[in-house]
Amino acid sequence: MLIPFDDNYFMKKALQEAETAFEKGEIPVGAVIVIDNKIIARAHNLTQTLNDVTAHAEMQAITAAANFLGGKYLRGCTLYITLEPCQMCAGALYWSQISNVVYAAKDEQRGYKKMGGKLHPKTIIKGGVMEEEASMLLKKFFIQKRNLN
Amino acid sequence: MLIPFDDNYFMKKALQEAETAFEKGEIPVGAVIVIDNKIIARAHNLTQTLNDVTAHAEMQAITAAANFLGGKYLRGCTLYITLEPCQMCAGALYWSQISNVVYAAKDEQRGYKKMGGKLHPKTIIKGGVMEEEASMLLKKFFIQKRNLN
Repeated sequence: MLIPFDDNYFMKKALQEAETAFEKGEIPVGAVIVIDNKIIARAHNLTQTLNDVTAHAEMQAITAAANFLGGKYLRGCTLYITLEPCQMCAGALYWSQISNVVYAAKDEQRGYKKMGGKLHPKTIIKGGVMEEEASMLLKKFFIQKRNLN
Repeated sequence: MLIPFDDNYFMKKALQEAETAFEKGEIPVGAVIVIDNKIIARAHNLTQTLNDVTAHAEMQAITAAANFLGGKYLRGCTLYITLEPCQMCAGALYWSQISNVVYAAKDEQRGYKKMGGKLHPKTIIKGGVMEEEASMLLKKFFIQKRNLN
């Protein structure tokens, strides 16, 4: 059976957000939040544009999804994010009690697993979905940035 | 010598923010960010009012201080916060590279020390400033809430 709405489908949407970030000169990370196969929030990293370390894609997506739902808890929702969350975003996800987090690339340096943060015990986490595509975009960004400096 | 601008002076300002949160029915946590003995950001917890788990006092204060300074790094700044930061806020403070964090009450359950997060290696942290006052306000809030339910 063909399932049109699978993890790859939604991660592609998150990657489109990451590409938009790339075009703005932002570290290319994108996110979507989904409930019942419907995207209720889209966001990409805007830390440079907004001069704000808190403007990670996940943070904006959490705020937007809660706004859409009219409540601050994201039970039943899935976050698709192109890079493993940092401890700040893991902390926000913890408070949101989100049901699922699916990420693409690992963040060996600043990911929440390395930094020591925790997701909510009810949250199911899955990594490695479209990892190659997300990593390539990040590498392309940092190579380009190095050449410009 | 009398030093008018000491930790107690600024923590009192953070406590005033916490009292404002209390009056709004929010968990009473308040924050100020200071540079060169000048308050550049004031904020209090607004998670209920804004329906947003990311609306902790620290997060709003970080965004406001960066906006005031015109840059996202808070080097040279001190955050005064009435409750030990959670992992989300510790993560945001990490990214901001803030110089000093001074908190009042410990958060044994959800503080970043318990949850496993990290501040930036350049950040100096100090706890217990006006701990009694901040704890009393939090206790008063939770007792009142329990009696209303």
